[in-house]
Amino acid sequence: MSLLVVGTVAFDAIETPFGKTDKIIGGAATYASLAASYFAPKINLVGVVGDDFPQSTIQDFNNHNIRTEGLQIIEGEKSFFWSGRYHTDMNSRDTLDTQLNVLANFDPIIPDSYQDCEFLMLGNLMPKIQLQVIERLRKRPKLIVMDTMNFWMDMAMDDLLKNISMIDVLTINDAEARQLTNEYSLVKAAKKILNMGPKYLIIKKGEHGALLFHNNEVFFAPALPLEDVFDPTGAGDTFAGGFIGYLAKTRDISFSSMKRAIIYGSAMASFCVEKFGTERIMNLDSDELNERIQEFIDLVQFDITLV
Amino acid sequence: MSLLVVGTVAFDAIETPFGKTDKIIGGAATYASLAASYFAPKINLVGVVGDDFPQSTIQDFNNHNIRTEGLQIIEGEKSFFWSGRYHTDMNSRDTLDTQLNVLANFDPIIPDSYQDCEFLMLGNLMPKIQLQVIERLRKRPKLIVMDTMNFWMDMAMDDLLKNISMIDVLTINDAEARQLTNEYSLVKAAKKILNMGPKYLIIKKGEHGALLFHNNEVFFAPALPLEDVFDPTGAGDTFAGGFIGYLAKTRDISFSSMKRAIIYGSAMASFCVEKFGTERIMNLDSDELNERIQEFIDLVQFDITLV
Repeated sequence: MSLLVVGTVAFDAIETPFGKTDKIIGGAATYASLAASYFAPKINLVGVVGDDFPQSTIQDFNNHNIRTEGLQIIEGEKSFFWSGRYHTDMNSRDTLDTQLNVLANFDPIIPDSYQDCEFLMLGNLMPKIQLQVIERLRKRPKLIVMDTMNFWMDMAMDDLLKNISMIDVLTINDAEARQLTNEYSLVKAAKKILNMGPKYLIIKKGEHGALLFHNNEVFFAPALPLEDVFDPTGAGDTFAGGFIGYLAKTRDISFSSMKRAIIYGSAMASFCVEKFGTERIMNLDSDELNERIQEFIDLVQFDITLV
Repeated sequence: MSLLVVGTVAFDAIETPFGKTDKIIGGAATYASLAASYFAPKINLVGVVGDDFPQSTIQDFNNHNIRTEGLQIIEGEKSFFWSGRYHTDMNSRDTLDTQLNVLANFDPIIPDSYQDCEFLMLGNLMPKIQLQVIERLRKRPKLIVMDTMNFWMDMAMDDLLKNISMIDVLTINDAEARQLTNEYSLVKAAKKILNMGPKYLIIKKGEHGALLFHNNEVFFAPALPLEDVFDPTGAGDTFAGGFIGYLAKTRDISFSSMKRAIIYGSAMASFCVEKFGTERIMNLDSDELNERIQEFIDLVQFDITLV
């Protein structure tokens, strides 16, 4: 039984008020699988890179128990590249450059050894590719979590809605929830989205935390207030990876377990933003993680006994 | 021993995407003392109105155990009036009209019967007037909570900083915390503000909840996700009133008690925004309040046991 993570594995170049990077390792599946690796015992990665992608990073993945048989390396082509600049508030950014490269013809291949997939994380990708992954799994996973973005709502809404009807957990941000439903109220937006198919909806609000909706229940996980948010790139993917990684570890997909999973995802995201790229989440130890979880407990726990 | 609430008692005219009102009862001290009245046994109000202010509202105050000996009624003059229009996001608003009227020459008189003040809520007012209140109390209260706004940072920063150095708890919103310190990070802003004097700082983030800072500790209280925010006017004052009202009731000003107080304040604010003006907080019963508190508990509580 395993966790399958599908998404971009890429290069990023990032500018923030704190500095800028040359090409560094990025991509939704990179962040999600690294974050999940602190919980899930076995992770299978599906993605595509060019022959410019460093073998040392693939080795890093393997060292995190991330199997890369499903990571296609296309000879003579380049990896997906994204470049962006963040504003002071770190919530808004400008895309400076996007080079699809190998992603333009990505045909996700699921190796036979991946077919025992119990948990599936569909990172942000063209909806048709996300659908191919679902269709190519011979057995429906126990839990499918899908991330997406506003770009696909503009460009491929019908495909996206089809996927949304087939999955268990959708993760989007607050602006995307509003765009998807034409509702300003997130509570109303959530009701509409849950009616589209998913049993669970996670609305990510960046520095303002995340909301988990399920039937008529709602759970809120805060973001940890940090002295500095150094680089928010990958925080949402890291959050999703920590979330599904924790569920894959415990194999408990009850609402209480999902609450815990969101706290673990939020903790992983709080590490992610402390340094550029994957630097901070590449090497965490369990003491650091436990301390961070304790900070989340201290941040929101209070004792009121109603009589 | 009692709670003293000082601030505006006024008329508002409000436009939101849901409708508009004629002149209705408003003012920081109105919202704060009504909210506090569900907790604190005895509330003393200090403020000023004109002879246009309805006697029936003063009766409403008295019915909520809010004493009005310190509410000056200036014959031949008009009450403070504010008019504003909210945008769709309900977080931003335009002021359409401000008429100071009686507030222009407000000289806060503290009746002898108010001198047993143990808890003091200084609602948003000109800093010099807030200071007069502190100076006119013969004995320093056990706890002074002060609210203010960006306008005074622009117009009377020196006076404001003097007040901030004399109080126990400052409540401001996130934009104001940034303006006061020139720090974008709220954690850094909080450190600077705590160095200015107050032992506690509450940063209000509207629909995104509130942060309580004390020494190196931080507590986060969410806002309740609501289907509709009908009218946000007075939510911050209602929050502050619920907060200090709970502390005045329990007379416990430990950090744990402040956490509970913030949850009660948040619950009161969540009622406030459900209807125009003071309508919703004028008549609450204890069952409604307990149900709302339970919603806050369910919203954020999770069980993670670290080993």
